[in-house]
Amino acid sequence: MKKYAKQDFPVWQVRRYLEPGPIVLVSSAWKGETNIMTMGWHTVMEFAPSLFGCIISSANYSFEMIRKSRECVINVPTAALTDVVVGIGNCSGAEVDKFEEFGLTAEASAQVKAPRIAECHANFECKLADSSMIGKYNFFIFEVVQAHVADRPKYPQTLHYTGDGIFMVAGKTISKRRLFRPEML
Amino acid sequence: MKKYAKQDFPVWQVRRYLEPGPIVLVSSAWKGETNIMTMGWHTVMEFAPSLFGCIISSANYSFEMIRKSRECVINVPTAALTDVVVGIGNCSGAEVDKFEEFGLTAEASAQVKAPRIAECHANFECKLADSSMIGKYNFFIFEVVQAHVADRPKYPQTLHYTGDGIFMVAGKTISKRRLFRPEML
Repeated sequence: MKKYAKQDFPVWQVRRYLEPGPIVLVSSAWKGETNIMTMGWHTVMEFAPSLFGCIISSANYSFEMIRKSRECVINVPTAALTDVVVGIGNCSGAEVDKFEEFGLTAEASAQVKAPRIAECHANFECKLADSSMIGKYNFFIFEVVQAHVADRPKYPQTLHYTGDGIFMVAGKTISKRRLFRPEML
Repeated sequence: MKKYAKQDFPVWQVRRYLEPGPIVLVSSAWKGETNIMTMGWHTVMEFAPSLFGCIISSANYSFEMIRKSRECVINVPTAALTDVVVGIGNCSGAEVDKFEEFGLTAEASAQVKAPRIAECHANFECKLADSSMIGKYNFFIFEVVQAHVADRPKYPQTLHYTGDGIFMVAGKTISKRRLFRPEML
């Protein structure tokens, strides 16, 4: 599988990759163990600080690892990784070393212990910013503290999950810049 | 513009249309006035009750209408409405009657006063379920109480905003059902 060389990217611009709603892979580390989960329930919450909210079900092995370490990396995979994305979502970190099982490369992060996935187009290092909604909704609010993004392709073929085993793959892009008021861009 | 005839749809399955992360149009009503805003920061939060969380900036005219009425409708537009989506996001309900300005049809909802937009592929009637995160994050948690979805096309060409005036249009769909454990579908 292809690894993406990445550049630093402004954290306040991560909406560029997250607002379209891709399936992401969440990597974590706790007490010498790493794990990866697939996640589709997430939203951008603020530009600066760069806030990102997501549901991590307590049924996931990652839940306690992330809650206790208060960190994770949000990795954005592309269509080339579709089978890996499905595979990761269909087994548990309690039984499987997912980096090894799926042949993924754990790269060191800059500000968190959770590893970045080299085969993903983008990696967003996150620290838990607000845990107050975890108990009631399994809703985690993270601050993206560092972002790493591949230069090419400019518009990656992200995966968007519709349920029922079916993914929509990102299609063409269209610019409507001329219709925007400048302050809305 | 085409109006979509719609069928009742199970509220616990709205992730089918919302999890892929489309730009949505939020319609509201308060004291005899209606409004529409464009929104891209949202997430599914639970199957049953059907919970949906989203950021509605207090800078939007819709903010107080929705906060006070405790209701809205989440409407899913398709690429045919791209210019309308941009137009709605670039003017304010304080100055413009958006249904009139953009030639949209307000249809009565079943359980809320906020109108449904007939020209959208799907309409999800929502009631405010939790206002506790509005003050700090402008984050509204709604329960989807009734869902209306067009039968065709099965996979609508939704719009996904990347910022900077550029939209990604939903591309092809791929089924990976055979790779899923049955309980994961």
